[in-house]
Amino acid sequence: MAEGFFITFEGIEGSGKTTQINRLADYLRKNEHDVLISREPGGTELGQKIRKILLDPHFDTMDYKTEILLYAADRAQHVKEKIKPALKAGKIVISDRFVDSNLAYQAAGRGLDYEQVYQINNWVIGSTWPDLTFILDIDIKKGLERARKLSFDQAGDRLEREVDDFHQRVREAYLEMAVAERFCLINAARSIVEIEKDIKNIIARRLF
Amino acid sequence: MAEGFFITFEGIEGSGKTTQINRLADYLRKNEHDVLISREPGGTELGQKIRKILLDPHFDTMDYKTEILLYAADRAQHVKEKIKPALKAGKIVISDRFVDSNLAYQAAGRGLDYEQVYQINNWVIGSTWPDLTFILDIDIKKGLERARKLSFDQAGDRLEREVDDFHQRVREAYLEMAVAERFCLINAARSIVEIEKDIKNIIARRLF
Repeated sequence: MAEGFFITFEGIEGSGKTTQINRLADYLRKNEHDVLISREPGGTELGQKIRKILLDPHFDTMDYKTEILLYAADRAQHVKEKIKPALKAGKIVISDRFVDSNLAYQAAGRGLDYEQVYQINNWVIGSTWPDLTFILDIDIKKGLERARKLSFDQAGDRLEREVDDFHQRVREAYLEMAVAERFCLINAARSIVEIEKDIKNIIARRLF
Repeated sequence: MAEGFFITFEGIEGSGKTTQINRLADYLRKNEHDVLISREPGGTELGQKIRKILLDPHFDTMDYKTEILLYAADRAQHVKEKIKPALKAGKIVISDRFVDSNLAYQAAGRGLDYEQVYQINNWVIGSTWPDLTFILDIDIKKGLERARKLSFDQAGDRLEREVDDFHQRVREAYLEMAVAERFCLINAARSIVEIEKDIKNIIARRLF
């Protein structure tokens, strides 16, 4: 594989992305692939600083445009510094969240202009769109319950404390995206092993 | 004045913006105007965090798109939290740098797509474009010499250490903008008092 392969995982809080990413990476490494796991926001050192601002509950008056632009700024640095070089070196890059999070959370969730958010992101990403995106779909009540159990701070961070309506709009935005070719919709309400098996089968068909 | 009045100051480093802003604010306050002085980046608490990232010499591999998006994120918060409410309250807002800095430094200076930078900023600003913009024009050698004298750290921050070519492109971008109606081009190579007199005359004609 000369050009690498770029996989992203999307889904609401508590949909099990991290677990599945780690299992997929193990599987790929056993099959002698060079894998880089990353995430957004905060995939780079600079991005970590941006992530800190984005998740700080203190900034609850953050303008929605500011929020989108901070995510996009983080993404631009992530693409340039980490994703592009890894793909060039032939690696499989797996990112926990990428552009579709911005489209689902900021455009659909916040009710901001989809075209504008897409346009900024398309400029940021250039030719580095994902080759394959898994959407882990789960009922928002189940997902948020799981996310809260995992969270040290029971109050949750700024995003997790959003109201249910918001998360419902996010889930629906993901379901709408999923019809396009790049996406694989995964029912994430099942057991970890069942989900893992689905993902491995899809990857095996695409890569081996 | 029901709607306030929005003035911005632009110019390369060392063009004397801060001095003139303070003198103009004193003059306006003596004439019983309610004045708010602000600046970019860092006009809000959230913006201070963004400013810190932008000026940190450690991040010398910052992607140019990341840089633009961070400035735009700072501006979105600045407009929403500070500029718009002040204008609505009938104040005169004076900002040390605003959108034109992004167009001069990031689009022209960095050689990025002008239309794209303009488009993002136009979305961010909405209807809150400045009513009047002073461009303090000065030879880049003189300006940078002054800026370095004012700087505690002789090495300068990340932006001040840019090469002369960059600053020359920025100056030229400002000169090109200055032909449009919103702008007043001020020869900033003269004495502080002479420049101040010019600015006061222009303001008096517009506001009194």
